[in-house]
Parts: sequence; structure tokens; C-alpha cells
Amino acid sequence: MPVVTIQMYAGRTKQQKAELAKAITEAVVRIALTTPEQTWVVFQDVPRDSWAIGGVLASDRP
Amino acid sequence: MPVVTIQMYAGRTKQQKAELAKAITEAVVRIALTTPEQTWVVFQDVPRDSWAIGGVLASDRP
Amino acid sequence: MPVVTIQMYAGRTKQQKAELAKAITEAVVRIALTTPEQTWVVFQDVPRDSWAIGGVLASDRP
Amino acid sequence: MPVVTIQMYAGRTKQQKAELAKAITEAVVRIALTTPEQTWVVFQDVPRDSWAIGGVLASDRP
Amino acid sequence: MPVVTIQMYAGRTKQQKAELAKAITEAVVRIALTTPEQTWVVFQDVPRDSWAIGGVLASDRP
Amino acid sequence: MPVVTIQMYAGRTKQQKAELAKAITEAVVRIALTTPEQTWVVFQDVPRDSWAIGGVLASDRP
Repeated sequence: MPVVTIQMYAGRTKQQKAELAKAITEAVVRIALTTPEQTWVVFQDVPRDSWAIGGVLASDRP
Repeated sequence: MPVVTIQMYAGRTKQQKAELAKAITEAVVRIALTTPEQTWVVFQDVPRDSWAIGGVLASDRP
Repeated sequence: MPVVTIQMYAGRTKQQKAELAKAITEAVVRIALTTPEQTWVVFQDVPRDSWAIGGVLASDRP
Repeated sequence: MPVVTIQMYAGRTKQQKAELAKAITEAVVRIALTTPEQTWVVFQDVPRDSWAIGGVLASDRP
Repeated sequence: MPVVTIQMYAGRTKQQKAELAKAITEAVVRIALTTPEQTWVVFQDVPRDSWAIGGVLASDRP
Repeated sequence: MPVVTIQMYAGRTKQQKAELAKAITEAVVRIALTTPEQTWVVFQDVPRDSWAIGGVLASDRP
């Protein structure tokens, strides 16, 4: 443990995920006092037609 | 907040998701006393060969 | 299926959860064309000191 | 209930998922004292470039 | 990886969780071809007034 | 969006959660190019008798 799950719009590059995983893992290890190997980060890409805010799909928002 | 996550079989149309998001957001805002913009709805499409009921994948059920 | 998971601040009453479950299940059955018994709704109460927006815990926001 | 969610690297075959669903459902029914039809198993395939261990994406690890 | 998350009604004993974790981990290691140390099992206890089936909270069902 | 969910052993203080939320939000905003208000961080505290590694509950590991 810990497991960090990141739900965000699809479209982020592999490079962005690599940087996010590195930065978040460093923060978790430093603040939550665990080890890097015990810190897992999972990305869930969500298409914009599968995420609604204010009752409207993101793909339909202006 | 709130975050509403809906796991269901893949195959629903974008139109169905739009209607679901609208109806669920209205219910959450009315009953849980929050605002539309603070209500997020996320759909997770699950293929039928990745969902089992009774120990059998939905794609193998009659 | 479907499974609807609702993460929201702790503090909603059982009555509010009952109304939410009823309204959301009706919407899911009507729009996603499933049956009530196949629609599960799970509430996850999140304390305000475990939910951050804008990098600040909700319990610390004005 | 229960709902068992399995996040793992993409690449497992449908046959492996079928065997996993069967074995896990049997264990849940036997130990948690529920029925097969009330036990749902959902697989979430995660690409190796969306899963980091030790701050490094699995697709970049040796 | 993998991460197995089990949502079920609160009330299972620690002994039941220990047996479930052992049986599920054995199945995952054998079928999905991974190692025990790379298999994490997380239990989420859900109160019966936070789980609805058929639009009715489990705590209100006969 | 995004929603960042952190599952970890119960026991972290509110201060640790506040620091984690701040650091993770900064990383997400900078790398994923979103805004702080659109970045939500949710902590799920998991007791050690509800988290197994290697088929053994953390509360039973030496």
C-alpha cells in the first residue's frame, strides 16, 4: 500500500503519466512515510462522453 | 463532491449516458442538497467478458 | 449490473440515502434498460477531512 | 453483494478471467456465506503504461 | 499488481477476511500467473443502510 | 476532473492528508494542465485487518 487511482479525461500522454507517477510517488513516500515499491499509481482514462459535470457530458459542454 | 461512478456493460449509447447523467444529477442535487457543478458522474463501460455473475462471465451466460 | 457508487461527504441521513437509491435506480432502469434487482447502489461516506478540493481539505475550507 | 473488482495488467485471456471468476466466486460464497448470483466479479484491464510501481510506469521498468 | 477490492456488507469477521484473502490470492497467483507479494486484497465494509438493491436499502428489505 | 483516490492504511493524521492533498494537487495541476478547483483528492482509510498482501492480512504480518 498505498494505491493511488487517478481518473481523468483520456488524452494525457505516456510522458505526462510518467511525470505524474514520479511526482505523486515522491509525495506519498515523503509525507505518508512508506516506500516507493509499496506505492502503486493507477491511471483510468475516461472519455469525455463518459464524464458529466453539472448533468452534462464533458463532450457536450462548450 | 459528490462523485457518482456507474459501472455497466459496454454498449450504452452516448445519448443514454447523457440522459442518465442528467437524471442522476438532478436527483443528487435535489436530495443530497448540493449544486450541479459539484456533482460529477463517471461512466465505466465494462465488456461482457469482464463481468461475471454467479461465477460465469456475462458473455458466456445464456 | 449496473453498480452505482456514490462518494459524498458523510452526514447524509439514511432517509436521504433511501430516496437517492430509489430515484437513481428508477433512472437507471428506465434509461439503461435493466431491472431493479440488477441495479445496485453503494454509498461511500467520506469525512470532510478526507476530501480535498483545490488542494485543501474540505474541513479546512471556509 | 458482494462486488469483487480486479484491477490487473491488460493481457489476460478470456479463459483466465473465466477461471478467476469461477474460483473467486466459489471462495466468496463458501467463506462469506452468500450466493453465487449475489456475487459479481468485475475485471478492469489496466495497460502497462497506466500502472506505476516505485514511481515508474510498468511499461518502462526492465 | 493485481489489486482485488471486495465490497461487501459489514459484519464479516477478521477470520473470514483472512480466509478470503488467502483463497483469492492463491487463485490469482495460480491463474493470472503473478506472485503473492504482488497481489493485494482490500476489503471495503459497507453498512446495510448504504447498499441498495432494487432501489431499497438492504437495511429496509425484509 | 481529475479525481485522485488514495487508499492507504488508516492512521495517517489530518496534517499528513492536508500535505498530501496539497502536493498531489500541485503535481496534477502542473503536469496534467488542469485547475486546482477541478482536482479532487479523496482518501480512503483502510484498517490493517482489511488489507492483505501475499494472502495475509497486514494486521497478521510480522
